Amino acid sequence: MIEDKNQQRTALENLGEFGLIKHLTKNFGLNQSSSIVGIGDDAAVLDFKDKKTIVTTDMLVEGVHFDLSYMPLKHLGYKAVIVNLSDIYAMNAMATQITVSIAVSNRFPIEALEEFYEGVAMACQMYKVDLVGGDTTSSTKGMLISITALGIAEENEIVYRKGTKPNDLLVVTGDLGGAYLGLQVLEREKEVFKVNPNNQPDLEPYSYVVERQLKPEARMDIVELLEKLEVKPTAMIDISDGLSSEILHLCEQSGVGCNLFEDKIPLDPTVISAAEEFKMDSTMIALSGGEDYELLLTIDQSDFPKIKGNPNLTVIGHMAMKEEGAHLITRGDTKIPLSAQGWNSFSS
Amino acid sequence: MIEDKNQQRTALENLGEFGLIKHLTKNFGLNQSSSIVGIGDDAAVLDFKDKKTIVTTDMLVEGVHFDLSYMPLKHLGYKAVIVNLSDIYAMNAMATQITVSIAVSNRFPIEALEEFYEGVAMACQMYKVDLVGGDTTSSTKGMLISITALGIAEENEIVYRKGTKPNDLLVVTGDLGGAYLGLQVLEREKEVFKVNPNNQPDLEPYSYVVERQLKPEARMDIVELLEKLEVKPTAMIDISDGLSSEILHLCEQSGVGCNLFEDKIPLDPTVISAAEEFKMDSTMIALSGGEDYELLLTIDQSDFPKIKGNPNLTVIGHMAMKEEGAHLITRGDTKIPLSAQGWNSFSS
Repeated sequence: MIEDKNQQRTALENLGEFGLIKHLTKNFGLNQSSSIVGIGDDAAVLDFKDKKTIVTTDMLVEGVHFDLSYMPLKHLGYKAVIVNLSDIYAMNAMATQITVSIAVSNRFPIEALEEFYEGVAMACQMYKVDLVGGDTTSSTKGMLISITALGIAEENEIVYRKGTKPNDLLVVTGDLGGAYLGLQVLEREKEVFKVNPNNQPDLEPYSYVVERQLKPEARMDIVELLEKLEVKPTAMIDISDGLSSEILHLCEQSGVGCNLFEDKIPLDPTVISAAEEFKMDSTMIALSGGEDYELLLTIDQSDFPKIKGNPNLTVIGHMAMKEEGAHLITRGDTKIPLSAQGWNSFSS
Repeated sequence: MIEDKNQQRTALENLGEFGLIKHLTKNFGLNQSSSIVGIGDDAAVLDFKDKKTIVTTDMLVEGVHFDLSYMPLKHLGYKAVIVNLSDIYAMNAMATQITVSIAVSNRFPIEALEEFYEGVAMACQMYKVDLVGGDTTSSTKGMLISITALGIAEENEIVYRKGTKPNDLLVVTGDLGGAYLGLQVLEREKEVFKVNPNNQPDLEPYSYVVERQLKPEARMDIVELLEKLEVKPTAMIDISDGLSSEILHLCEQSGVGCNLFEDKIPLDPTVISAAEEFKMDSTMIALSGGEDYELLLTIDQSDFPKIKGNPNLTVIGHMAMKEEGAHLITRGDTKIPLSAQGWNSFSS
C-alpha cells in the first residue's frame, strides 16, 4: 500500500505492441520437452506425443477479481497463473504450458508490467510450466488478465468431476477459509489506509491468511502424492468458489448425494481466530469463501488405508444416494441442506 | 445502428456464472475426433495422437479493437473466432478447438451474449472447430473477449515465419485494404448517425469493404489448396496488421531482405474507388491497413509453375539478401524502404 513516488515510469507506447511482448517475455525459456516452439510466431507448437492434452482458461478482472491497491503486481502475476494451473491438477494431470494475455490502460508503466511478468515467471519456474504465447493490448479501463493453461495426462490417469459413487469418501487437501479471511484483513487495512495514510499496518498476526489470499499455491504436489500412494480419485475438482459449491458440482455431475461433517472441515488456527475477530462463522467461510485452490476429491473406501494419517488429506464426509441429497452435518448433529453460495461476479 | 427498443432484456445476474456458461454453450456439440471432453469439467481433454498441437491466443477490447455501435454482436462473435483461427492457418495447420472467455459489464443483457455466441457457433460450424472451454465474468467497463485456438499439424507440414530465403517468391492470398476501408465507411456513417439519427445509410456501394470489416474469413481454404497443389511455403504469416508490418516480420525472422512491387498488390475495384472517395492512397491502405486476415507466404521459385494463374494466389515480390533491405518498388520505379506502420493499440 506504499507507493514509491520515485519509481521509474516508462510509457507503454514507447515500445509498441511487438516490442512490448518481446521485452516482457525475453527471459522466458522453454523447459518442457513438449514445448517445440514458444512465443514469436503466429502460434506455438507443442508435442504431447501419445498423451492426452488438458486445456483450461480463466479470466481475472481488476475491480472484480483483484484490487491493485493491496495486490502487488508480482503477486498478481503469480496468482493468475496458479488459478489456472489448479484446474489442470484438478484433472489429475500435470501442467506443461500457459499463454498469458493482458489488457492494461495507458496508466500502467512498463515497469508495472515487468513486475507482473516477474510473478508469472516465478510461477512458471515453481510449477515447471513454459510460457508459450499471449497477447498484450490496451484497455479502456483497468487491467484484465486471461490465461490458458495446457497440461498432459495418460488417458487412464485423468479424473473428472463425474465418477464418484455413494459411500466414496469425500477428501479435501490442506485447510480452508484462509484466502477469504486474508481478503477481509486486506480490505480492512485499505479502509484504515484511506483514513490515515501514515498508518503502518501490522499484518504479522495475519500473515498466514494474507499469504493465502495474495500468494496461493496450486496443489501439484497432491497429483504427485496420489500417484505415489497409488490412489486414483473417483472424482476431483479444485476449490475456487468455496467448498459447498464444489461439492454440489461433484454431486450434480456424478448423480449422487453427500454428507459433509462440519467438525471434520480442516481449519488453520489463524483462520479460527481471525474469523472470531471478524465475527464470522468459520464453517460458513470454509463453505462459501473460495479462492483456497485446494483440491476436493472422492476415493473408494478401499483406498482409505492408503491415505489414512496423511497430513495433506482430510476425510470430511462421504457420498450418498442422489435421493438423500447433499447435507452438512453440524457439530450439533443437525442436518442442513448444502446450498451453492458460489460466487457470482455478475451480482451487485 | 438501429436499436430495437422492445427487445427482451434479461439481466445477467439472474442466471449466475455457472448457469450463464451452461446456457450460452448448450447448443455447442463436439465434432472433432480430437475433442474428448469439452465444457463442464475443470478442463477440457483433447487427443492429438501423434500430431503436433498448435496454440494461439488473441484478446479483443471494446473501444480499442471494436465498436459496438456498428459491430453487431453476432458478427463480433464470428470475427473474434476468425482472428484466432487465422493464426492457426498461418502455421499451415488445421484449427480444431477454441476456448472463448468474455468479460462484460452488467449493461449487457443475456440476449446480447446469446447473439455473440450465435456468431461464435457460426464460425465453429463454418471452420469445423469445437468450443471446449471458456470463462464468463463481469467487467467494470465494456466488453472484452479472449480466445485461444488450438490446431493440429504433422511436424513436416508446419510453416514458420522463419524459413524464407533470398529469391523466394512473396505471395499473398485474396486482396488487401478492404477491411480498413470498411472501417472508414462505418466510422463515417456513425458520425452521420450522431447528427441525424433518422438518416438511413446506403451501404450498398460499400458492401464488399464493409463485409471485409464486419465479417472477415480465415483462409482455411488456402491450407487445403496448398496441400492439393503440393506446395509447402518456405514461410507464412497472416496479415492482421497490414502488409508492410508482416513482410518485415518475415524478413526479420528469416534474416532476409525483400522487394515488394506496388503494381502487383491485389486490390479489389471497390477498394480503389472507396480509397479515392476517402482521398487515401490505396497502396498505403494495403501496406498499413490491417485486419484483412489474408495469408502472406513465400515459396521456392521452383514451385512457381504450381501456383501460376491461381486466382487465390498473387506473386507480389521476392525475397532478397538481408543487406539489400526491404523495399517497396513503386509504379514509378522508385525504391522506398518499407516501414512497419503496424498498428499499436497503446499509442493515443
